[in-house]
Amino acid sequence: MPQYTAPLTDFSFLLNDWLDIDAHYTALDVAGMDSELAQEIMAQGAKFAETAVAPLNQTGDEQGCQLNAGVVTTPDGFAEAYHEYIANGWNAMLGNPDYDGQDLPYTMAIPVHEMLNSANLSWRLTTMLTESAVLALNKHGSQTLKDTYLAKLISGEWTGTMNLTEPHAGTDLSLLATKAEPQADGTYLITGNKIFITAGDHNWTDNIIHMVLARLPDAPPGVKGISLFLVPKVMVNADGSLGELNSLTVGSIEKKMGLKGSPTCVMNYDAAKGYLVGEPNSGLACMFTMMNDARFQVGLQGLGVAEASYQGALSYAVERLQSRAPQGPQQPDSKADPILCQPDVKRMLLMQRALTEGSRALAMLYAQQMDVEKYATDSAKSDAEAVIAYLTPVCKAFFTDMATEVSNYGIQVYGGHGYIREWGMEQLVRDTRIAQLYEGTNGIQAADLIGRKLTRSNGTLMHTTHAQFSKIVAAITDPSYQEQAEVLLSDWLATSNDLLGNSPEYCAAVACDYLNYVAYTLLGILWLSMLDKLPNTANQVFAQGKQKTGEFYLAYLLPRAEQHKTAMTFGHATINACAVDDFVFA
Amino acid sequence: MPQYTAPLTDFSFLLNDWLDIDAHYTALDVAGMDSELAQEIMAQGAKFAETAVAPLNQTGDEQGCQLNAGVVTTPDGFAEAYHEYIANGWNAMLGNPDYDGQDLPYTMAIPVHEMLNSANLSWRLTTMLTESAVLALNKHGSQTLKDTYLAKLISGEWTGTMNLTEPHAGTDLSLLATKAEPQADGTYLITGNKIFITAGDHNWTDNIIHMVLARLPDAPPGVKGISLFLVPKVMVNADGSLGELNSLTVGSIEKKMGLKGSPTCVMNYDAAKGYLVGEPNSGLACMFTMMNDARFQVGLQGLGVAEASYQGALSYAVERLQSRAPQGPQQPDSKADPILCQPDVKRMLLMQRALTEGSRALAMLYAQQMDVEKYATDSAKSDAEAVIAYLTPVCKAFFTDMATEVSNYGIQVYGGHGYIREWGMEQLVRDTRIAQLYEGTNGIQAADLIGRKLTRSNGTLMHTTHAQFSKIVAAITDPSYQEQAEVLLSDWLATSNDLLGNSPEYCAAVACDYLNYVAYTLLGILWLSMLDKLPNTANQVFAQGKQKTGEFYLAYLLPRAEQHKTAMTFGHATINACAVDDFVFA
Repeated sequence: MPQYTAPLTDFSFLLNDWLDIDAHYTALDVAGMDSELAQEIMAQGAKFAETAVAPLNQTGDEQGCQLNAGVVTTPDGFAEAYHEYIANGWNAMLGNPDYDGQDLPYTMAIPVHEMLNSANLSWRLTTMLTESAVLALNKHGSQTLKDTYLAKLISGEWTGTMNLTEPHAGTDLSLLATKAEPQADGTYLITGNKIFITAGDHNWTDNIIHMVLARLPDAPPGVKGISLFLVPKVMVNADGSLGELNSLTVGSIEKKMGLKGSPTCVMNYDAAKGYLVGEPNSGLACMFTMMNDARFQVGLQGLGVAEASYQGALSYAVERLQSRAPQGPQQPDSKADPILCQPDVKRMLLMQRALTEGSRALAMLYAQQMDVEKYATDSAKSDAEAVIAYLTPVCKAFFTDMATEVSNYGIQVYGGHGYIREWGMEQLVRDTRIAQLYEGTNGIQAADLIGRKLTRSNGTLMHTTHAQFSKIVAAITDPSYQEQAEVLLSDWLATSNDLLGNSPEYCAAVACDYLNYVAYTLLGILWLSMLDKLPNTANQVFAQGKQKTGEFYLAYLLPRAEQHKTAMTFGHATINACAVDDFVFA
Repeated sequence: MPQYTAPLTDFSFLLNDWLDIDAHYTALDVAGMDSELAQEIMAQGAKFAETAVAPLNQTGDEQGCQLNAGVVTTPDGFAEAYHEYIANGWNAMLGNPDYDGQDLPYTMAIPVHEMLNSANLSWRLTTMLTESAVLALNKHGSQTLKDTYLAKLISGEWTGTMNLTEPHAGTDLSLLATKAEPQADGTYLITGNKIFITAGDHNWTDNIIHMVLARLPDAPPGVKGISLFLVPKVMVNADGSLGELNSLTVGSIEKKMGLKGSPTCVMNYDAAKGYLVGEPNSGLACMFTMMNDARFQVGLQGLGVAEASYQGALSYAVERLQSRAPQGPQQPDSKADPILCQPDVKRMLLMQRALTEGSRALAMLYAQQMDVEKYATDSAKSDAEAVIAYLTPVCKAFFTDMATEVSNYGIQVYGGHGYIREWGMEQLVRDTRIAQLYEGTNGIQAADLIGRKLTRSNGTLMHTTHAQFSKIVAAITDPSYQEQAEVLLSDWLATSNDLLGNSPEYCAAVACDYLNYVAYTLLGILWLSMLDKLPNTANQVFAQGKQKTGEFYLAYLLPRAEQHKTAMTFGHATINACAVDDFVFA
């Protein structure tokens, strides 16, 4: 597996030259935060990802997880790396300072998260879900629950899980059947089966805190009758010490395409003791608290894998000598030229890089907006909320679709060797494939974007996002770049407004193409904005390559936006013309 | 894993209503061949694929192959299914009748090959490579070699392999280093290491016949100094009985992303005895004899997997009840509607079906041309050769790229379950991924199309292919379909002619997009031709669904042709602007 090196040069460009985070922190009045600290955190995060986590990626895939006598063990070294992670405080980066969290800006934490995903997706996933559980508990938990559980989840002494899916309730949580029986002491007994529970059990910590969706006896049917419960693996005594085991077991662990270092558990709750989080029947709202964050984090998984695959492909393309460049020998003293001299290999590497770096720019803009939402006290806060709401499904679906495409180029650059496990490139394809499926399939993301986000708000979330991007375009100094960006801006607005007022069936048919249209358009705007800033960045060797990558994006990849618009325009009628009988014939 | 059912209705439509194979056999004067026999062979092939081979697909993936004490064993049941296959004569379908081959038309054999690929790619691959070895030996082997080996390879008593790749010679065979030392008795001693050798050893037969590329001592450097040798695993005595073991061993078997039921061997030849096939230093020409066939067969692998994935996705989409259709409940008595009612799921299934059935039409047209090349005695023979030469890289690369896309939709339709191995959908993605890499990566196919096939022939192969498609368009009776097809025809001609005279560097940069442009355009023409024939087919329930699938193709997928043309036009300059230093910076 190729060595992973964190893309610190690109992160520095984005944070300092492109986003100007010093001005950003000053404007938000965030005490003690500046670009120097961001740089230091990124450097330390890079070191941890590169040296402690990345070396476990391939062995983790080979060993996988084991379930023996009801106890899950993860691959060699995973637990130790986790203990180093929490000892160094990484788990607490975003946590509430009342519970010993560091309360860092997202612009500082998100780069580290991307690096961890590049280094080892399986390993990272457990801490990502703990962060989600912390968000839900922090916002909706009672004071007692927070005081009992939050500090230990933030420090990482315990991990957290999210329990939503049941065998017959995946996308459709209205079919959820797990029951919660109220007890005289104010607790509940939870009974039911959950599937696809990441890190439902493991050998890293003494306790695991499950966040479980279930129904109260008198709950209304459908999604309005779902409540959220906190169910610890081991009961916690009043003094904080651990008591007896709760009544829950791991039924099995799934055999998966990839992500083999992460245990995906079937969880059986057999009258397990739980505590209500938030109001009765408001479980779905509680889950939505962490949904934007978790979905964005899944998008970051795709981004991380795409970067890792690009690095692997590039290193091979430089080293592998095979055939001559079409214009003649480039290394005449060697028996053959590096395959990087082949235009088709360059094309694949440019696609990898342009998609990855374009997506990273969108991710960092998202992180910037998360900072604004977190720290701002004026109308900028609600504007940022709107931008985040609109961009979340775009980041989740586009980054993860793009990662599958990019990591497949990674295999392709290696030729037949890409198919062999020891080279590590096919693992990236297998690992990232889940990210298109979990936290809502990418089809669900597209439905969320066009339904809940675009049409249900009658365009207001989109218009706020558009205003934010208009500011970015207004700041472009090069008139040609600015003009191109303005065309994209107005096309995005017109295309979005045209969708308002259409039938749900129409919107459902064009949803995925709308999402991709938006993503390619936004990346176009961001590439133009980045190109505008490149002359000012210190590393001009880096700037030259990035310049050419951006020009490639605009010439070669941006036309995909138009293609998705064409598919929206002409495709929906032929999709909705099909009935079930048109597929099924004797 | 979903049950595989051979698409006999579609094959019947293609052979009878679309290609009119009775008229085709009559025109070629092929004795005893008619649509009735074709139907019977397809029905029997379907039965064998569905009942003998498909049930071994998932267990084959789980068990994989083993190498113990130098001997390879394949998964349970594989050898037995092979013995049934050869006992029923399937291995001999295309073989030379002088050596007990059945000499059937390709239009009869190719449907069965597609079915075997759908049922179990790992299992099928060994016989596919035997067929390639037979082709090379039949055309280039001496009478003695043919008399000794051909009948047993055609019957399947022995299997064959192709040994090209070495660790440092994959795409670039000029770097090949395996040596062949001539002996006084006219044989050669072969010494070297070969990698990626499919079925280099197994437990199916008593002998394995390796076709090995190697260099003679006085050979010129590069590809002009490569010769082909036949190297048996077990020496064959003059009376045809088996003698002593030859001096070759299996060094290891590869751990791969998929195709785990097929042993991919590292072969070590240590002064192994071999026999020259064809003239000295003409090994590459001998390999090219079987290259068109093997590359088309790899394309068929993609087609087969795409069909299997479509079937799996469709069955799940019909059965899985989750959420309501956007226009309201479609199965009001159930708790939810089948997910097939969701437009986005319909969209994915339509993409799967439109790409698969469009590709199958191209595959059957290719088979028809193979028949013409085989049986015709007039200028039609050389015309068919030209058509086959032009279409081979298109079929290989497009069908296999398409299969990766289509089988990923198969996962996506299943949601999270698609990632779990027991459902079988992710295996299809892993298995088919190799088809984009072996027999020349798809980048090499694109280079072959635009280089050797288009520009090096100064367009003549393309023009002959264009003439063949013009006949298809001329036969369309519906004026609207015909008009649309004529637009595609002339655009294809103009786009191809525009490429003539460009630099190798330019052509290399646009090669993949040209190949995809051609494929989407040709499938558009073929869909229009098929739509024209649908009113005449017997099964009108099938015809209605296929009609809507074709309309979806034309509205939703055909615009991809335009997108690839755009990428060709605007992309090449930004690709060739990049030098190695633009990727590598400190």
